Amino acid sequence: MSSEVSRRSIGARPNPDAADAILDAAASLLQRKGLRGLTTDAIAREARASKTTLYRWWPNRGALLLALYVRRKGSSVHEDTGSLIQDVARTYERVFRTWQNEGQLFSLIIAEAQHDDGVAEALVAFRKERVDDWLPVLRRAEERSELVDGADLEALAESIVAHAWFYLITRRLGSDPAILAARVIGPWLRKNR
Amino acid sequence: MSSEVSRRSIGARPNPDAADAILDAAASLLQRKGLRGLTTDAIAREARASKTTLYRWWPNRGALLLALYVRRKGSSVHEDTGSLIQDVARTYERVFRTWQNEGQLFSLIIAEAQHDDGVAEALVAFRKERVDDWLPVLRRAEERSELVDGADLEALAESIVAHAWFYLITRRLGSDPAILAARVIGPWLRKNR
Repeated sequence: MSSEVSRRSIGARPNPDAADAILDAAASLLQRKGLRGLTTDAIAREARASKTTLYRWWPNRGALLLALYVRRKGSSVHEDTGSLIQDVARTYERVFRTWQNEGQLFSLIIAEAQHDDGVAEALVAFRKERVDDWLPVLRRAEERSELVDGADLEALAESIVAHAWFYLITRRLGSDPAILAARVIGPWLRKNR
Repeated sequence: MSSEVSRRSIGARPNPDAADAILDAAASLLQRKGLRGLTTDAIAREARASKTTLYRWWPNRGALLLALYVRRKGSSVHEDTGSLIQDVARTYERVFRTWQNEGQLFSLIIAEAQHDDGVAEALVAFRKERVDDWLPVLRRAEERSELVDGADLEALAESIVAHAWFYLITRRLGSDPAILAARVIGPWLRKNR
């Protein structure tokens, strides 16, 4: 769902090649100059694109950073293993691996969001998308009668995402994803009752 | 428990007045020069203390930042209202108010921790303390038979803390603390089953 997420995140607009070229330029800048070198001006220069074009795709630097992150991490489709704990464990495993490998881009986005309003706005929207992505997975679990009656799916989705981000910011990506999934999902499961 | 937390966080050592003077100096520097001006050298100069003294109290800049934060936010004793959801709601309410009022110090600590190993180390230790602080509260709830049988108290404590920090980093401190508490604690309550 990478392309779908991208389309949703950054808006459906013509010429995705141009967007890709701009993200390439941003990635190259980031590699060479770090996060502080990644200004809209510098990206426009590097990509030989107008700032208007940049803004048309990404309303602020945070949105562009997140698009870069989404492109790097690739698909974020949640698996359908037939077991919610398994689905969550697989995602935690994949996400923790990505976070360990792609040069901390996402944790830097979180850091930037703490003092840059544009990045914060993009992160807030990104959180909402990540939570929403879990809802169909949780509905499947509900249909399989895995969950307690009347489970608040949105609260559960948020808990899944909150724990992942919490583990990232407190540097515990080496934790066992299956154990974490069981801790997060456990109290929501009917069979535990 | 402010003093108790401080003692535990930074080690029980003589002459707390000297520590206070150093924290005063750090607070003043932070106010005037921002986080980047808050180096060990600058603090030592400002407080007319030796760097050795600083290091004896706080092994790194992150530990000092957290001590400053703990001193500012004051007591973090969790209330005993006789209801776990209430206890958690009260804490969320107090903590969110602190986070909104004290100039984002804690979110800046989280940001710094993403690229400063000393701050990260201090934040990891701080997380552990915050989780441990919840355990007696959860044991009380267990004794009142509020919780499902065999509830993993450590997992629940972590979830309480994870959600608070998640709301901070995604800028939702205006959320209703009672609703959040009910969302986080709900699935762990026996009466819901």
